[in-house]
Amino acid sequence: MKFKTIIMGAVASTLMTSLTHEVLAQQLPTRLQQIQQLKWQQVAPGVWKTIIGKADQVNYMSLRRRSVQIDGLKSLPLANFPLDLTKIAGTAGANKAFVRLPMADDEKIYGMGLQFKGVRRDHKRYRMEMSWYHGGNEKTHAPVPFYVSSKGYGVLINSISNVEFFFNNTYRPDSDKLPVKRDRTTDRKWTHKAQGKYVEASVNGDGLEVIVFAGPTLMNVVQRYNLYSGGGVLPPKWGLGFWDRAHTKHSQDFITNAIKEYKTHKMPLSVMGVEPGWQTKTYPSTLAWDNSRFPDPKKFVTSLKNQGIYVNLWEHPYLHPESPLYKQIEPLSASHLVYQGIVPDLTLAKTRKVFQDYHQKIHLDIGIAGYKLDEVDERFPGHVFFPGGLNGEQYSNIQGLLYQKTMVEMYDRQNLRTYGLVRASNAGAASSPFVLYSDHYNHEDFIAALCNSSLSGILWTPEIRSAGNEREWVRRMQAVCMSPLAMLNAWSSGKKPWSFKKVENEIRTAINLRMSLLPYIYTTFAQYRFTGQPPVRSMLLNYNIENADQFMLGDSLLVAPIIWGKHKNDTREVILPKGKWYDFYTGKYVGNDQKIKVTVSLDKMPLFVKNGGIIPMINPVMNPDQIKENTKLTLRHYGDVPSEFMLYDDDGKTFNYQNKEFSITRFSVVKDEYNNKLVGKITGKYGSYKPFYGDVKWLFMTK
Amino acid sequence: MKFKTIIMGAVASTLMTSLTHEVLAQQLPTRLQQIQQLKWQQVAPGVWKTIIGKADQVNYMSLRRRSVQIDGLKSLPLANFPLDLTKIAGTAGANKAFVRLPMADDEKIYGMGLQFKGVRRDHKRYRMEMSWYHGGNEKTHAPVPFYVSSKGYGVLINSISNVEFFFNNTYRPDSDKLPVKRDRTTDRKWTHKAQGKYVEASVNGDGLEVIVFAGPTLMNVVQRYNLYSGGGVLPPKWGLGFWDRAHTKHSQDFITNAIKEYKTHKMPLSVMGVEPGWQTKTYPSTLAWDNSRFPDPKKFVTSLKNQGIYVNLWEHPYLHPESPLYKQIEPLSASHLVYQGIVPDLTLAKTRKVFQDYHQKIHLDIGIAGYKLDEVDERFPGHVFFPGGLNGEQYSNIQGLLYQKTMVEMYDRQNLRTYGLVRASNAGAASSPFVLYSDHYNHEDFIAALCNSSLSGILWTPEIRSAGNEREWVRRMQAVCMSPLAMLNAWSSGKKPWSFKKVENEIRTAINLRMSLLPYIYTTFAQYRFTGQPPVRSMLLNYNIENADQFMLGDSLLVAPIIWGKHKNDTREVILPKGKWYDFYTGKYVGNDQKIKVTVSLDKMPLFVKNGGIIPMINPVMNPDQIKENTKLTLRHYGDVPSEFMLYDDDGKTFNYQNKEFSITRFSVVKDEYNNKLVGKITGKYGSYKPFYGDVKWLFMTK
Repeated sequence: MKFKTIIMGAVASTLMTSLTHEVLAQQLPTRLQQIQQLKWQQVAPGVWKTIIGKADQVNYMSLRRRSVQIDGLKSLPLANFPLDLTKIAGTAGANKAFVRLPMADDEKIYGMGLQFKGVRRDHKRYRMEMSWYHGGNEKTHAPVPFYVSSKGYGVLINSISNVEFFFNNTYRPDSDKLPVKRDRTTDRKWTHKAQGKYVEASVNGDGLEVIVFAGPTLMNVVQRYNLYSGGGVLPPKWGLGFWDRAHTKHSQDFITNAIKEYKTHKMPLSVMGVEPGWQTKTYPSTLAWDNSRFPDPKKFVTSLKNQGIYVNLWEHPYLHPESPLYKQIEPLSASHLVYQGIVPDLTLAKTRKVFQDYHQKIHLDIGIAGYKLDEVDERFPGHVFFPGGLNGEQYSNIQGLLYQKTMVEMYDRQNLRTYGLVRASNAGAASSPFVLYSDHYNHEDFIAALCNSSLSGILWTPEIRSAGNEREWVRRMQAVCMSPLAMLNAWSSGKKPWSFKKVENEIRTAINLRMSLLPYIYTTFAQYRFTGQPPVRSMLLNYNIENADQFMLGDSLLVAPIIWGKHKNDTREVILPKGKWYDFYTGKYVGNDQKIKVTVSLDKMPLFVKNGGIIPMINPVMNPDQIKENTKLTLRHYGDVPSEFMLYDDDGKTFNYQNKEFSITRFSVVKDEYNNKLVGKITGKYGSYKPFYGDVKWLFMTK
Repeated sequence: MKFKTIIMGAVASTLMTSLTHEVLAQQLPTRLQQIQQLKWQQVAPGVWKTIIGKADQVNYMSLRRRSVQIDGLKSLPLANFPLDLTKIAGTAGANKAFVRLPMADDEKIYGMGLQFKGVRRDHKRYRMEMSWYHGGNEKTHAPVPFYVSSKGYGVLINSISNVEFFFNNTYRPDSDKLPVKRDRTTDRKWTHKAQGKYVEASVNGDGLEVIVFAGPTLMNVVQRYNLYSGGGVLPPKWGLGFWDRAHTKHSQDFITNAIKEYKTHKMPLSVMGVEPGWQTKTYPSTLAWDNSRFPDPKKFVTSLKNQGIYVNLWEHPYLHPESPLYKQIEPLSASHLVYQGIVPDLTLAKTRKVFQDYHQKIHLDIGIAGYKLDEVDERFPGHVFFPGGLNGEQYSNIQGLLYQKTMVEMYDRQNLRTYGLVRASNAGAASSPFVLYSDHYNHEDFIAALCNSSLSGILWTPEIRSAGNEREWVRRMQAVCMSPLAMLNAWSSGKKPWSFKKVENEIRTAINLRMSLLPYIYTTFAQYRFTGQPPVRSMLLNYNIENADQFMLGDSLLVAPIIWGKHKNDTREVILPKGKWYDFYTGKYVGNDQKIKVTVSLDKMPLFVKNGGIIPMINPVMNPDQIKENTKLTLRHYGDVPSEFMLYDDDGKTFNYQNKEFSITRFSVVKDEYNNKLVGKITGKYGSYKPFYGDVKWLFMTK
């Protein structure tokens, strides 16, 4: 937990130091003069870049919300270039640009964006292409061309054209260690599945940019990638409460009334989403308030905000001729229509300004807190032309990023944080405060996506919509409450948290647990912001375990959801990494470096804490706005060793933390010299912000 | 049946007359200056071409084996440009080239190469890309970018890069008849499945060439496409007999002995395929005779040929370092390996010459009759570089065509016809004497592929390998015997036609039926050669019926196979087009413009003949070489109307038919003036070749 020093550095300077240490690849064995020497430039500590052929002007890193977080990168272990320079090569020509990087026989490949299946990506071809996910492979709405290697490094192909990857399944005559050529007719050991020893990646076009991230650990690789992308997101506190979305036909009065039911049922709620119906017309959209359903949007927003509930609005960017923006945007739009609406070219500063000025006036000025940016995945052919010069293939890959950028810039200028949803994202998005979701509703795939997305600097919510029965309803609710965004998206089904009456208590327990964990979750996001460690963490990141059905939430909490459709009879297997692990609810020791089988009653999901884990908790609140000064804080300690926890706090709304207006409290558990028992104490306070907590209570869970 | 005149013209001149009637598209409504005026050039009767941007030097039409068959084209109905010129547009830029063509709301799209599923291609996106088919959509090893429209025209995107098609599912602001914009929130009639009114097709790169083929009928469209591709294939007669393939480890002696069993079982055989084992090493391959298994290949080939059996050799082009060709080919090969073998660049004349000189010497000079060209579908990444300048994406699309071209040129120079198998093909292949096959073994898909391939100038065999039981064995055998190439490819399973003892008679019946039909089938191929009408014909071609489980073989025979896995209890539905239809076996009337249900015993497949159909038949022979002079010919007439059949014959081996050494006999059925009964007579003989038949017998099947 060394992120305090990192924050200190980060706030002092987020400017990138130019580190132009050039590394020249040795001359490679050439064949047909096609292999180019590559020049590598170190662009940040442990980060190197090369350009093969002619690089695109627009790339993922040019779309970052924030610049490189150099201080965070400096605090990571010193690292050399992680690959054998003599084995890297690339070339461009004949409308293809490609790079070849060495890959060991036993090397494993992970990551590659929002992936719904499995963990391993090696020995396959991957075509990274923006697409609408509806099951199957090779389809995703966050096709991040970034992979993480088991050898402790990562590679980003920083090109917005579709990237095709070949992991250890191509050959060149100049490959070393070519496998023995066997005769298929007579040699039973013949196989076509030989080792290629290389990763190759290519795009259609004149060139590509390659960025290599050092480790040494997988976590370090991901940290470097996230910090190079501007650091992770620190959401506003309200964003970490519970979300719901209203039916598209509901009026402001209807919604205002319906919200009262949350109080009746004592169910937390901090964000209410409003679906397309706030607009006069949608698909394509006018982006204009519908006066019949929303006669006084400001009153609506204010009345909710007074209850600690924030309003999120659904949008897509495809404009109806009746939109107030239409005339200005029309000359700045693409050659083709989507839903018969014009497609704004958001690469153009002018387009973004038109969008921003308009949204500022009709939304931000009345308190709209954020957006759900929908339908920005695969929507048009690759040959669509954009006035800014991109083609549809390129624009598809970044439309989600551009839309996020357009919206977040408005909030940044207001010194206000936002947190929302987006249907498509891509590389370099770590610093963008939007969470991915999808219509695909397979629970196992949803949890795998949660694990895998943590390797690519993107956030994902396994949103809950409906369920076939009470048990599914509870199991899905438990899982979404341990994710970056806890949302009921049931506007279509009309479900409310209390819809399945028999399990209303279990549902409340699941949501309340999230509310109790808010201090822990917020600190976890602060780690993401400053150290690049994602809030939800694949078991690969700290433990090198290939798994896609359990994950770490922050440093200490192992979450093993009962996955609907996969785990029967409330029972599942849990992999416990090396080290002692304890049951979250009882503090009892459960195992060490082993697989265990657990059965949990419906009111619980399997949660475990590592030895020395400290979990700060509060009594459940209806929403984060209710966490006022002097809130009672309970620090749960698990296991039998001394440890510490650095609790982060700030105003939860602005970027004032970047001007030192934050606080870090060091909670330590030490061995009492007198009786050899563990005791807890505060051993340090940093920063100028007064943290939320009053009374502090220590709870030693393990007896 | 007007192909006599066509042949006469075709043999006189196959040179293309230059018809440079330019048609200029009217100026289109422009948007962002992206829409280009297109200049159309009429390149043959009913065929027009335009180039958008910069066209590739290598394209499908540049790889044709024969030039445009202008006389065949001239004999088709006069036709105007079939599309509204004002609605065609295209442009190139930002690494994408695209064309937009009008499409009516009720227009249907067919074709698109070797397609294993369904008939319709509209309202979908198709990415035409060379791939290894293993079920599912969008994968095929003949991704022909040519479609046929129900409105009576066809379009070829003559670009060897991958073509992406959008059929009526894209929009531009300048589209006419844009559907009404509806509000999704309130209007129940809202749909995202609106009509786009256009076909759009695009490639990555600087340009594309578009070729439009007029109708007016679907058959005329396909004829124009095939004739523009050089006319269809007329195989050597031996190619139309029955094929088998020996196990890869079998020696020449073993094979020579094993063939005797065919005689014992009285099973026809005209081609024996030899798998990789003829070579010293394969995968990668040496292309050198293995002396242990084949000590005297010439003796082997000669001994088989004396029995009327021809030898076909398996090959792939990926060379082992021990290949005699390796040193010469190495500098002419690609940047990557396949099966660790070098990949010859067959776009280079020098590479083809090295291949041809070598094969001539070790194969053609000793009588090898043809090849099975394997593994030339999806085998390497798109970024592979070829010394001739193509990238892997482009080369993948044409590798099969280049390999076919390399091999067929040798035979053409010898004035010898060949007929073989190939794993990958593409546009412009009608004149190439190779038949596609695949490892996919779903019978329903195999029959659909047979129907669909007839729309794209490619031949396909639903080869038989093995079966789970006797009934499947018979049903698959019956179907393959009605296809362009009747092959048992059971080298791996070891199955022989008599392997399922209980049904040996049914199998013999199926193969013998093909042998009896050889005169009919050969004439049908002659139609393909000179008129462009494919031998197997989708029900679309003459009857506009969308169907993928029955087809026409030639003009008169409707083949409705009992498809294994689809049709249960020997029963199936058959669609009878307009006109009277008769049972092939009994001559009985079965229906007119209706669906009928038929049940057939295991020794029969459902076969029907149209009213007036004349089917020339002979007694079954072991192989086509046994069809000597004065063979007894039976002409079966079906139905109740006068008609005629033009029987084509030639030497069956050479191209001497191009010097008028062929014969056409006009067999006519007329009403006898005296008793008003139908009688058959020969009413004309054309050409200098003496046809095979002696006694002629008429059989009026319908009483």
